Amino acid sequence: MKILQERILKETKIVGEDIIKVDMFLNHQLDVSLLAQMGREFYLTYGSEGITRILTVEASGIALACLTAINFKVPVVYAKKGRVRTQEGNTYSGQIFSYTRNENTYIAVSKDFLLPQDRILIIDDFLASGNAIFGLKDLVDQAGATLVGVGVAVEKGFQGGGQKLKDLGIPVRSLAVIKSLENKRIIFAD
Amino acid sequence: MKILQERILKETKIVGEDIIKVDMFLNHQLDVSLLAQMGREFYLTYGSEGITRILTVEASGIALACLTAINFKVPVVYAKKGRVRTQEGNTYSGQIFSYTRNENTYIAVSKDFLLPQDRILIIDDFLASGNAIFGLKDLVDQAGATLVGVGVAVEKGFQGGGQKLKDLGIPVRSLAVIKSLENKRIIFAD
Repeated sequence: MKILQERILKETKIVGEDIIKVDMFLNHQLDVSLLAQMGREFYLTYGSEGITRILTVEASGIALACLTAINFKVPVVYAKKGRVRTQEGNTYSGQIFSYTRNENTYIAVSKDFLLPQDRILIIDDFLASGNAIFGLKDLVDQAGATLVGVGVAVEKGFQGGGQKLKDLGIPVRSLAVIKSLENKRIIFAD
Repeated sequence: MKILQERILKETKIVGEDIIKVDMFLNHQLDVSLLAQMGREFYLTYGSEGITRILTVEASGIALACLTAINFKVPVVYAKKGRVRTQEGNTYSGQIFSYTRNENTYIAVSKDFLLPQDRILIIDDFLASGNAIFGLKDLVDQAGATLVGVGVAVEKGFQGGGQKLKDLGIPVRSLAVIKSLENKRIIFAD
């Protein structure tokens, strides 16, 4: 998606070796009209797949998931991190390793919101090694629901998560694929 | 907002004495078309106020803030909880007490995304004692920006946060105000 690539080139900071910071428009600050355009792209890809729910994980996936769901006219469900007082244990749960926080995070979804007959689209802001997506996939599998596909804004292709998903036969639509960050230069895959 | 009151009556569970659980449509699972209607209500209230940014706090405020911002055509900024590797210290920060998690939470916003000339609308899902809103207001004050008003989906009127804000002269638009939860019965203020 050309407009996204241009924004990444213009506004992204590279932190350390391999963390790209898209705080200006994709997380922390959210350019909702850009996110709405991205949501329409996912609809072009998955709009005829009979999606019944869109699944993401708090917090940075929520905005893009919502602006995608507007097109599909289906609910968003976001996996919660940690345990909160209003949660009752009636959940599917698992763990994901957060690269930015450098720790394992417990995630959970109420069993009310993932049903065996659901056809799920997973949406997230980033796909790197794939930990978050595989954590969400695990919840979908626990529910016996069908994972139709994955949509992410930015894929760091060199970290292998996208390939692992494709190797399992799971469709992945990445709106911008970064092939390399060597010498702090962003090179896209196309 | 009648449609929201109806959904609350139909789908809300009351947990303990005074926690209402709106996981079915407002957090955890998100009814994005309902949220979009709510966003349009906030635009009717604040659309002529020259809002430049919408401020909320992760995670449960993000969806409603985004579906509000679509109307205003301004960015959303969400305060982050905790400290993450990609954050650099160039932040306004404070603490809020989370009633559902029963703990103090550190929140922060990058100084890049709250400017002295900003006219801010704060959006959140809930207003109870007002801790989250006052935490966000503190960030706005640190930036020297103008807090134009507050918009929340559900106000628990009996916990006093809304009144405290109005006493300070801050406009508050609550789409559903709960007057009482006595005997686990939801009574609205109007």
